Amino acid sequence: MAKKTDVNTLGEFGLIEHLTADFSPCRESTVKGVGDDAAVINFCDEKRGPYTLLSTDSLIEGIHFDLAYTPLMHLGYKAVIANLSDIYAMNAHPTQLTFSFAISNRFSVEAMEEIYKGVYKACELYKVDLVGGDTTSSPRGLVLNVAVLGCAFPEKIAYRSGAREGDIICITGNLGAAYVGLQILEREKQVNKVAPQASPELEKYAYLIERQLKPEARKDMIRFFEKSDLKPTAMIDISDGLASDLFHLCKQSGLGAYLEESGIPIHPETEMAALELNLPPLTCALSGGEDYELLFTISPQDINKIKFLPDIYIAGEMVAAKDGLHLHTTGGKVVPLEAQGWKHF
Amino acid sequence: MAKKTDVNTLGEFGLIEHLTADFSPCRESTVKGVGDDAAVINFCDEKRGPYTLLSTDSLIEGIHFDLAYTPLMHLGYKAVIANLSDIYAMNAHPTQLTFSFAISNRFSVEAMEEIYKGVYKACELYKVDLVGGDTTSSPRGLVLNVAVLGCAFPEKIAYRSGAREGDIICITGNLGAAYVGLQILEREKQVNKVAPQASPELEKYAYLIERQLKPEARKDMIRFFEKSDLKPTAMIDISDGLASDLFHLCKQSGLGAYLEESGIPIHPETEMAALELNLPPLTCALSGGEDYELLFTISPQDINKIKFLPDIYIAGEMVAAKDGLHLHTTGGKVVPLEAQGWKHF
Repeated sequence: MAKKTDVNTLGEFGLIEHLTADFSPCRESTVKGVGDDAAVINFCDEKRGPYTLLSTDSLIEGIHFDLAYTPLMHLGYKAVIANLSDIYAMNAHPTQLTFSFAISNRFSVEAMEEIYKGVYKACELYKVDLVGGDTTSSPRGLVLNVAVLGCAFPEKIAYRSGAREGDIICITGNLGAAYVGLQILEREKQVNKVAPQASPELEKYAYLIERQLKPEARKDMIRFFEKSDLKPTAMIDISDGLASDLFHLCKQSGLGAYLEESGIPIHPETEMAALELNLPPLTCALSGGEDYELLFTISPQDINKIKFLPDIYIAGEMVAAKDGLHLHTTGGKVVPLEAQGWKHF
Repeated sequence: MAKKTDVNTLGEFGLIEHLTADFSPCRESTVKGVGDDAAVINFCDEKRGPYTLLSTDSLIEGIHFDLAYTPLMHLGYKAVIANLSDIYAMNAHPTQLTFSFAISNRFSVEAMEEIYKGVYKACELYKVDLVGGDTTSSPRGLVLNVAVLGCAFPEKIAYRSGAREGDIICITGNLGAAYVGLQILEREKQVNKVAPQASPELEKYAYLIERQLKPEARKDMIRFFEKSDLKPTAMIDISDGLASDLFHLCKQSGLGAYLEESGIPIHPETEMAALELNLPPLTCALSGGEDYELLFTISPQDINKIKFLPDIYIAGEMVAAKDGLHLHTTGGKVVPLEAQGWKHF
C-alpha cells in the first residue's frame, strides 16, 4: 500500500467512525447500528417488540489486563461485567452471552477453569446464560471476547441520542476508583521487581483494588428506574472516563454540557490515594475509566424521583451544542472539558 | 496453581466441553445454549418466535491466517463468511453482525480500510448489517472477532441433534479445496524465502487459492431448502473437516454414521494438486477444514427432493451409536473414522 496513515492520527473513536461512516444498514430489523452502547434489533413481527440488544468487548493481555496482579477468576468476572454494563446502559436487561478465548500454550486447564469460575459467578449473580463462544490458540498471550444479548421493550430503551437541552446530568456511584486502584497495583508490581521479598501493603487500598479487579455493573439502577417509572432521556456507561463518555452522549444528542465539579462523585479513599500518588483526584474521575457506573440525563420534571437517592449524583445540565462542554470548578472557574478517554494506540 | 494440566490432553473440543459441562441456563428465553453452530434464543412473547440466533468466531494472526499471502480485503471477507456459515448451518438467515479488531501499531488506517472493504463486500452480498464492534490495540499482531445474529422460525431451525437412524447424509459442494489451497500458498511462501525474485506460478491453482482466501457461505442451500419445502433433520457447517464435523453431528444426535468414500465430493483440481503435494486427497477432504460447505441429514422419504441436484452429494447413512463411525472405502474396506479437526494447541 502506498500511503500509510498512523492510526494515532485518528484515535480509537475517530478510527471506528472513519471506517463505519459510509455503511448504511439494509435490514428492516436493524433499529440502531453502530454508535451506541449496544445495537438494537427488532426480530419480532410486531412493532412493539421486545427488541434484541447486542454488544461485544474484547480484553487483550498486555493492553487491558496484566496477569502479574490480576487473578484469573477476577479476569473472567470482569470480562462479563464490562459487557453487561453496556446492556444496562441501554436501560435493558442482559440475558445471554458468548465467551470466547484464545490462549497460548502457557495456559493450563486449571487456569481456564479459574477464568470460567469468574464467568459463571457473574452469570449467576446477574442471571445471564452462557450460550456459546469460540476456543482457539494464540501465538502469545490471552485474548478474551464476550458478546452479550439483551432484551427490552422499545419504549424503555435509552439511547445516547435522547438528551434534550435543559436535561439534568446524573452519575451513579463514584468515579476514578478503578483507575487509582490500577495505579496502586502497578506501583506494587514495580516495588516487587526490586524487592521481591517485601510483603505488599494492599489492605488499606482494598476498596480501590476491588473496583479495578472486580467491578460490578449497575443492574440495581435499571431496577430502580423501572420501580420509579423513570426513563432516562439518554444514557451511557462510564467505561472510558466521564469526560470521554459525556462527550459521546453530547455528540449523539447534538448538545453541549455544563458539568459541576462539586457534583462529580469521588470516594474519599480515591481522593486520599490519588493525592498520595500525586495524581489530581478530579483528573482520575474525569479520565480514569473502567468504573462501569452510569451517566444519564433526565428531564427536569423528574428530578424528585432521584433527588434523595444515596447513589445518584446530580452533576450538571445539558446545554446547546454551541455552548460546548465545560466544567465549572469548585474554585469558580469555567474550563473547557476535553474528551481524553483511553488512548490505546 | 499447584496442578498444571496441558490443554493438549483435552484438545479444543474436549476443553470447551470440560469448561461448560456444569453450566445450566437459568433464562426461559434460552432455547439452545452451548453445543451447536449457534445459540438459539426466544425473545418474542409468543412460543412461535421468530427465534434469535447468535454465533461468534475469532481469527488470530499466526493461527488462522498469515498476512504474507492473505490480502487484507479477503481477510475481512473471510472473517464474515466463517460466521455467516454458522447461521446458515442452523437453516436460518444471518441478519446483523458486530466486527471487532485488535491491532498492533504496524497496522495503518489504509490497512484497516482494506479489511473493512472485505467486511462490507460480504455484508452487501449476503444482506447483513454491520451494527457494532470493539476497537482496541494489541501488543502484537491482528485479532479479529465477529459475532453474528440470525433469525428463523422455530420449526425451520436444524440442530446438530435432530438426525435419526436411517437418515441420509448429504454434503454440499466439494471438500478439501481450501486446505490444499493453503498448502499451495505455504509452499510458495517457502519458495519465496529462498528465491524472492521467482515469480510464483499460482494461476493454475486459482480455484484452490480462492477457496482458501475467499470462501463463500451456502446461502443458496438455505433458499433451496425453503423452496423445496425440505427441512434437514440435522445440519452443521464443515469448518473443521468432514470427519470432525460428522463426529459432532453424530454425538449430538446420539448416533453413528456410515460414510461412502465414493460419495465424498472432491474437486478434480483438489485431487491433482493434493497428489502433486504428496497428500492423500481423501485425507484432505476428511480433515482439511475451512470449506464452509454444509453437512446435513435428511429423512429417506425426502430423497427425491435432492437426488438430481448438481451440488448436493449423498455420502452415507446415519446408523445406531453402537455401530460407530465408519468409512466404506472405494477399495471395499470398512475403516473407523477419526475426528481429527484442527488441533490448534
